[in-house]
Amino acid sequence: MRPSGRSADEMRTITIETGFTKHAEGSVLVSFGDTKVLCTASVEERVPPFMRGKGEGWVTGEYSMLPRATHTRGSREAAKGKQSGRTQEIQRLIGRSLRSVTDLKKLGERQITLDCDVIQADGGTRTASISGAWVALRLAVNGLMASGAIKEDPLPRKIAAISCGIYNGTPVLDLDYSEDSSADADANFVLIEGGHIAEVQATAEGATYDEEQLLRLLRLARTGCDEIFKAQAAAVSA
Amino acid sequence: MRPSGRSADEMRTITIETGFTKHAEGSVLVSFGDTKVLCTASVEERVPPFMRGKGEGWVTGEYSMLPRATHTRGSREAAKGKQSGRTQEIQRLIGRSLRSVTDLKKLGERQITLDCDVIQADGGTRTASISGAWVALRLAVNGLMASGAIKEDPLPRKIAAISCGIYNGTPVLDLDYSEDSSADADANFVLIEGGHIAEVQATAEGATYDEEQLLRLLRLARTGCDEIFKAQAAAVSA
Amino acid sequence: MRPSGRSADEMRTITIETGFTKHAEGSVLVSFGDTKVLCTASVEERVPPFMRGKGEGWVTGEYSMLPRATHTRGSREAAKGKQSGRTQEIQRLIGRSLRSVTDLKKLGERQITLDCDVIQADGGTRTASISGAWVALRLAVNGLMASGAIKEDPLPRKIAAISCGIYNGTPVLDLDYSEDSSADADANFVLIEGGHIAEVQATAEGATYDEEQLLRLLRLARTGCDEIFKAQAAAVSA
Amino acid sequence: MRPSGRSADEMRTITIETGFTKHAEGSVLVSFGDTKVLCTASVEERVPPFMRGKGEGWVTGEYSMLPRATHTRGSREAAKGKQSGRTQEIQRLIGRSLRSVTDLKKLGERQITLDCDVIQADGGTRTASISGAWVALRLAVNGLMASGAIKEDPLPRKIAAISCGIYNGTPVLDLDYSEDSSADADANFVLIEGGHIAEVQATAEGATYDEEQLLRLLRLARTGCDEIFKAQAAAVSA
Amino acid sequence: MRPSGRSADEMRTITIETGFTKHAEGSVLVSFGDTKVLCTASVEERVPPFMRGKGEGWVTGEYSMLPRATHTRGSREAAKGKQSGRTQEIQRLIGRSLRSVTDLKKLGERQITLDCDVIQADGGTRTASISGAWVALRLAVNGLMASGAIKEDPLPRKIAAISCGIYNGTPVLDLDYSEDSSADADANFVLIEGGHIAEVQATAEGATYDEEQLLRLLRLARTGCDEIFKAQAAAVSA
Amino acid sequence: MRPSGRSADEMRTITIETGFTKHAEGSVLVSFGDTKVLCTASVEERVPPFMRGKGEGWVTGEYSMLPRATHTRGSREAAKGKQSGRTQEIQRLIGRSLRSVTDLKKLGERQITLDCDVIQADGGTRTASISGAWVALRLAVNGLMASGAIKEDPLPRKIAAISCGIYNGTPVLDLDYSEDSSADADANFVLIEGGHIAEVQATAEGATYDEEQLLRLLRLARTGCDEIFKAQAAAVSA
Repeated sequence: MRPSGRSADEMRTITIETGFTKHAEGSVLVSFGDTKVLCTASVEERVPPFMRGKGEGWVTGEYSMLPRATHTRGSREAAKGKQSGRTQEIQRLIGRSLRSVTDLKKLGERQITLDCDVIQADGGTRTASISGAWVALRLAVNGLMASGAIKEDPLPRKIAAISCGIYNGTPVLDLDYSEDSSADADANFVLIEGGHIAEVQATAEGATYDEEQLLRLLRLARTGCDEIFKAQAAAVSA
Repeated sequence: MRPSGRSADEMRTITIETGFTKHAEGSVLVSFGDTKVLCTASVEERVPPFMRGKGEGWVTGEYSMLPRATHTRGSREAAKGKQSGRTQEIQRLIGRSLRSVTDLKKLGERQITLDCDVIQADGGTRTASISGAWVALRLAVNGLMASGAIKEDPLPRKIAAISCGIYNGTPVLDLDYSEDSSADADANFVLIEGGHIAEVQATAEGATYDEEQLLRLLRLARTGCDEIFKAQAAAVSA
Repeated sequence: MRPSGRSADEMRTITIETGFTKHAEGSVLVSFGDTKVLCTASVEERVPPFMRGKGEGWVTGEYSMLPRATHTRGSREAAKGKQSGRTQEIQRLIGRSLRSVTDLKKLGERQITLDCDVIQADGGTRTASISGAWVALRLAVNGLMASGAIKEDPLPRKIAAISCGIYNGTPVLDLDYSEDSSADADANFVLIEGGHIAEVQATAEGATYDEEQLLRLLRLARTGCDEIFKAQAAAVSA
Repeated sequence: MRPSGRSADEMRTITIETGFTKHAEGSVLVSFGDTKVLCTASVEERVPPFMRGKGEGWVTGEYSMLPRATHTRGSREAAKGKQSGRTQEIQRLIGRSLRSVTDLKKLGERQITLDCDVIQADGGTRTASISGAWVALRLAVNGLMASGAIKEDPLPRKIAAISCGIYNGTPVLDLDYSEDSSADADANFVLIEGGHIAEVQATAEGATYDEEQLLRLLRLARTGCDEIFKAQAAAVSA
Repeated sequence: MRPSGRSADEMRTITIETGFTKHAEGSVLVSFGDTKVLCTASVEERVPPFMRGKGEGWVTGEYSMLPRATHTRGSREAAKGKQSGRTQEIQRLIGRSLRSVTDLKKLGERQITLDCDVIQADGGTRTASISGAWVALRLAVNGLMASGAIKEDPLPRKIAAISCGIYNGTPVLDLDYSEDSSADADANFVLIEGGHIAEVQATAEGATYDEEQLLRLLRLARTGCDEIFKAQAAAVSA
Repeated sequence: MRPSGRSADEMRTITIETGFTKHAEGSVLVSFGDTKVLCTASVEERVPPFMRGKGEGWVTGEYSMLPRATHTRGSREAAKGKQSGRTQEIQRLIGRSLRSVTDLKKLGERQITLDCDVIQADGGTRTASISGAWVALRLAVNGLMASGAIKEDPLPRKIAAISCGIYNGTPVLDLDYSEDSSADADANFVLIEGGHIAEVQATAEGATYDEEQLLRLLRLARTGCDEIFKAQAAAVSA
């Protein structure tokens, strides 16, 4: 029995509110239950130094938790003067995931930065960030296409992410914080609409896991991502 | 004529939404028109080193802008590895203002941190932060009193802040971004319910100002703060 | 009764020694009683990145306390690896104040940096810095005009600053350290010769203050700045 | 055809030289072909703050590349003043992997730090680090058991890691640099002797991959790790 | 011929003004010609962590140049967020030199910090710092002995430092900036009253030097330090 | 009697293994007894900003100890976020020493960086670094000459360094760690083949020393460096 009463393959309620803030080229408040992340896409007409002169664009991600997004207040990374290893790991994952579905040539020599700021945390903040960031990116790209800055769509496919884990010996979908903090294994899947995999990060916590369990987690993730793809589609067409 | 069509002594619409996030002891989303700040109050049962052993508490503030709260994306202070002078100046102002209405002895040996994170900026973020932070602090103190941790109310008076300025030669109340960026003078007032002043910061930008103009700005600020005190009262009693 | 025996509207002895060091384009040791600040003006024939190509110059300030300028040794900011919020706040105030009396167009595309290093502190170091920095800036501008680098005087007016406060219930002028550390309110005024105000920063410490007290502090500040303007004039013509 | 002429499931030559340096409690130079990593285990009789008073030990990892371990010189992280996101990600993986096979209670209240310094890089430095660090840890634990400091073996199982990837459409084992830099997918597996999985990190680069390919990579990894387990056993018993 | 017209073994005028600032336990403005350094000694009744519980004291040095002590303005180390290698090298030399003449046991469990802040630079700032810091230290120790905090004198001998160099092929004493910047070799000697050597740092710049030249530089240094010892004695007894 | 049983003028065994790593333009593992340093030379076809446009090259050094090169683990400078004063001092010495024998004009507008990473420490790591770095630099220069990038040899002379000290009252050559940690004086000499001196750094530790002792240390250093020059010659011609 899961603490939330959900069944093993049951997602939390997903909401995706577009236009949450007004300045960004794409702005989305995404919720997976009590996990709420503000994802904004910012377009800049320049690329980082290592990409200059290639005629290609760049997509990157940044991630942060507000200090009191969590049960107890965490210290502010800006005040400490550096980003934690965890933050950097998540930022790299967000950028890598979104680049895996973006045609950088078609994007043209510009950069889109996806800022994912966790307003409230209840497990799964990195996967919610990726799923929400795709919508923000989609909106920003739509704007670039509408204005004629981009001719061909550089973002033909959706991408989504979800965490699964082995909780009390059972593979379950979409871990919330109470499950995550006591799971035997924790796996994040980044999946592309149509069935392909962009990234798997599956880590044993305490107990280790075997190949069969890995496959069961992957299948749960497919179920979950199909639901996210639908929510993304609805949000974009809204 | 103001860009927004407001009259010289007209505030923007104020909304104060309590309980915006669930973990903090006090949580408020405050809006002054398009300026939106999330203010949370976090109670910790310890005080900073310089306050230890005095039998008194501490109230402090932290401030940040989300990177895309503004028209163009600002770089993330955590990524740059340091907080700007502006951020530190605002943080110090928030903490000082709230301490000026808190009886630290009655608070007892605990710290309350007010985190003010700007979700969307349209001028007046520091004054909105102070006005919203008071509500978050009030809610946190109410919780401490309800639980019996505090016996006597350490927060008997309200505090609010508002910016005024000289725009096109006319003193106006509650500057929005388009006014702020071209004002001749910019003044932030932190006022206490009942008429006293906690802080005045009045700065000439381009043109300088004289004593009479300073007084006219102060009187506008009184009008504005009276409106804020009402909104604070309504939010707390809601 | 003030600890120093001064009357409420009595300044400490002001001395302004020009040419204190030999390399800077302007160099001044300014004293307000036991507060001693070395102010140097350094001219560089380039402007910071955000000012390039505008055909205008820039004036900026930096501030530091020597570690043992104070009663107990403070740790060196260079060793700690960052400047405190207080230091940054003061630096910003110094630069903003001097820019308010400088015509940046007439200055031409060059930067003048005012370094204010506190040799000995006894209250009022930020206001002494501004008052001394104006003299250093004036000397540097005189040099640029003498060499023909500047045609029209970009610095037609003097600026000075002084702190006032409410000490034991009485508004007093030019707080020394013993007054400053126990004052009920502390106000720094930056005034322009002729009567206009560049900046007011008035902060309640413990007790709050009202409009009438603010005005009395402002009038004391006028008295003090008139005396500083005379000392500046004497120093420059010496 | 692989650039090295190896078959798809062929590892590079593994060598594990123990006692490479004399001060560390465990010291190993591990080579996978031209990738060479010095792994040392340092025992300290104290634990980090978050583990104090629990009666348990801690195992952690640090990782660095010498500046000229690579084709072109990389700047030194100590000179830049911060560790890259990549470095931190690898350090966290090394520590997590070794903790997954260590019984921290049996280790007792002491810390073992595994320093993995890459002397020469040719792909697979993080997996070589984990595989070598286990040997260094084993040697350090043997020393603690020989001295009587530890009664029961806290490290009953071996752990090893290997990278696999899809190169020119074919899943291959133990990528070298020339393969890694142009692979379609890159997967790092951390496996435990006996068949369980500690960690999978599988990332699409350019092309994405599907479930069947993930499984083929996992099976290649099993083949590779079996070979590493043998080399580890030989090194420890030497 | 030296630029200053001095003979090869001629020092610049030395002045040592005690009591330059009022808060420090020892305060000295030392000048060697146009090189002016403010040296203060600060006594703290605690020692750094690595000295705790040994019943001994500690003496340490810090060094900084004011930004415009030099011909062209140098950026402020506090603003850059780190001390240069040169600064750290000089700080270490100051501390080591003064410790070489201090009996740390007799000093007792307290720390004396010598802050050497260069007000104006014209060559030889590190050696002027050491020579001046000794006087500041002596004054601070005198105060501790007068108050009864120290029973036996922990500072029985004087220490002084001077730079020599090979300028246009000739060994000369007490290099000023114009000599220093074009010298073939630059040597700093730290000598103890009575003839012993605390430190020699002799560096070839461009040309290298031989044993005979090293000895001639050492003999010049003895001449110079004898003069400094006299100035120190006069300053202390004044 | 020395702890190692060596006579006063007896060096430890020197080995210089070239080609220790494969990517660097010059790569050397140098050993003085149990002190082992990896020295690599990296050629880059650009110079640092302060050397641009002069038609000259630059030679610089970097230095680091692996965390467990020493008896007890030292914390990693990259993790602490800054290099120690000791590290910076040694880096500056390495660069300065190698530049003293390099004709920067003949090197052409390129930079060679000598990275000296201490694998194992037993005293004398900075002098071993200089002695080994010369060989790495020689090999890199040989490569540039062989490829025709350099016409005339910019490195006509060898340079070597050795530490000497006064141990139990006796001047001895090539201190190992047990001697170094209890020596009365510690002197590092950087000597040029043919007899000239590039640098002397002689520091009293506890006891001070006199001129005669300095000369005896210098003569020991000559003996040692002659032996190093032979080992360098053999390594280069191997």
